[in-house]
Amino acid sequence: MTPDTPPPPSESDFPLEQVTIVGVGLLGGSLGLALRRRGLARRVVGLGRSAERLAEARALGCLDAFETDAARALEAARLVVLCQPVSVIVDFLPTCFSLIPPGAIVTDVGSTKASIVEAGEAAAAQRGDSTAFVGSHPMAGSERSGAAWAEADLFEGATCHVTITPRTPSPAAARVAELWRRVGARIILDAPERHDRMVAAVSHVPHMVAVALVQSLDSVDGHPEFQQRLLGPGFRDMTRVAMGSADMWTDICRENRMAISTQLRELIRLLEDWDRRLAEGNCAEARRILETAAQRRTELYQTKSRENRGDAESG
Amino acid sequence: MTPDTPPPPSESDFPLEQVTIVGVGLLGGSLGLALRRRGLARRVVGLGRSAERLAEARALGCLDAFETDAARALEAARLVVLCQPVSVIVDFLPTCFSLIPPGAIVTDVGSTKASIVEAGEAAAAQRGDSTAFVGSHPMAGSERSGAAWAEADLFEGATCHVTITPRTPSPAAARVAELWRRVGARIILDAPERHDRMVAAVSHVPHMVAVALVQSLDSVDGHPEFQQRLLGPGFRDMTRVAMGSADMWTDICRENRMAISTQLRELIRLLEDWDRRLAEGNCAEARRILETAAQRRTELYQTKSRENRGDAESG
Repeated sequence: MTPDTPPPPSESDFPLEQVTIVGVGLLGGSLGLALRRRGLARRVVGLGRSAERLAEARALGCLDAFETDAARALEAARLVVLCQPVSVIVDFLPTCFSLIPPGAIVTDVGSTKASIVEAGEAAAAQRGDSTAFVGSHPMAGSERSGAAWAEADLFEGATCHVTITPRTPSPAAARVAELWRRVGARIILDAPERHDRMVAAVSHVPHMVAVALVQSLDSVDGHPEFQQRLLGPGFRDMTRVAMGSADMWTDICRENRMAISTQLRELIRLLEDWDRRLAEGNCAEARRILETAAQRRTELYQTKSRENRGDAESG
Repeated sequence: MTPDTPPPPSESDFPLEQVTIVGVGLLGGSLGLALRRRGLARRVVGLGRSAERLAEARALGCLDAFETDAARALEAARLVVLCQPVSVIVDFLPTCFSLIPPGAIVTDVGSTKASIVEAGEAAAAQRGDSTAFVGSHPMAGSERSGAAWAEADLFEGATCHVTITPRTPSPAAARVAELWRRVGARIILDAPERHDRMVAAVSHVPHMVAVALVQSLDSVDGHPEFQQRLLGPGFRDMTRVAMGSADMWTDICRENRMAISTQLRELIRLLEDWDRRLAEGNCAEARRILETAAQRRTELYQTKSRENRGDAESG
């Protein structure tokens, strides 16, 4: 074991000497607050473009110090958490790895993982030393943005995905998982591709479906008043997410396009099966599938409710 | 004008001498209550299979009298309202038209219209006299069934679709529309096919999509705990309707299969466009569509809210 090799995770890992948070918005600010309140880092440094906004975040207690210069923010970091938008993270990773000291671990909070992990592992391989990249996706946040909305308990009870690949050094993954566990999250360790496929299934493809349902009204030759009078609570609930931020969803579409495409084609296949069933008048099969889906849907959320997971039951 | 020809609608049409309600459940029972409380019929007769349940409905004030024999229930009817399940209505229409007196009007409450109106107009044409069929779809009801849940104000503020075709006698359509207006509904006159296409777009296809979204989880290689932890309020809202009655939805799939298929293929086309956009990395187009859909969705329910339509805003 050389001095550059991170030791296996242990109680003595925390507090970490310096954590650098890149992008101090809602998530980055909340992480800074949580680390400082819980004594998990001796020094939390924020890196961003606006000294004014960084100063505000420090005033709110999210940071011990801040920098607008990447080299200065990263030169002493033991752990770096990238809290920028997904596409910015991918672009920033090579710079990040060129500036961190040996042994430093880089993670992120992006909601898609395969493209980020690939870029992070490539940057770490380029260094060829004991630096490491481990992807994270804490499922927390809200419609709000900016450190002004930061909360020290934002990650409390949230699910946090930590990625594992054949290239992930186990001690680094263990340390990243421990960080999120200590700010209150429940950890899932899984492959980036499986994470992306699953969030595509439960979040990204449903979003596109909601958008397509709204678009599909255009094809119906009904006057607007008629359309509006027919719209009930079912359609309202199924299309609510279509009101989400176009910028954020464009980003997600770009970064998770492979998993979304796979899952979208699966959904299209299932809908084509429905069309075939209608054409054939196969009512027995239709009834069987309707019954199975009704039972499955009921069970999915009954189990959640037994787990008393308030975060997912709100809204 | 012969004595068989219905007069144009006027104040003197009401109260109707006899209205026969076929199938006295939630909708039929509520209509009976509404007609009697508002003095819109001198005599409300219920026709059903169970004398016991009909007696209960009469005890609740839904009916003046009841019959289990169709000929006796229909021989003196001026207006017949078929409140059975959609597929039963289609099968019952020839019998109904063989038993009603000249000049009688038949309508229904089925949630699909093209197949019912076609069967009703065929039965009326077979008679070749002044009897007439006019389709209705009062958008009222709840998960509950049975006359025990009947409410005199169930149709108050509800939208009621009344169908018009080239074969519909205007006076008959006017009288049916007036009936629903007098029990509190807001009327939309439209072609059966357009009605079916629109409810396919806002209700039937969304239902199938919700079922397919639940089905699509099976294709993801994630362990159940992982799936459940990732399920948030968005997926929950989008799949809630999948818990609906398999029997009712099998019936709807059968009766509205043409409109559902048309609208389903439109949705599949829109989803394939999304897949193409992902493959091409066409972010500009994606952003434009996401923005348009977000604005459209916001406007759809803002307008409803200005109309203060409590029925659609509940649940």
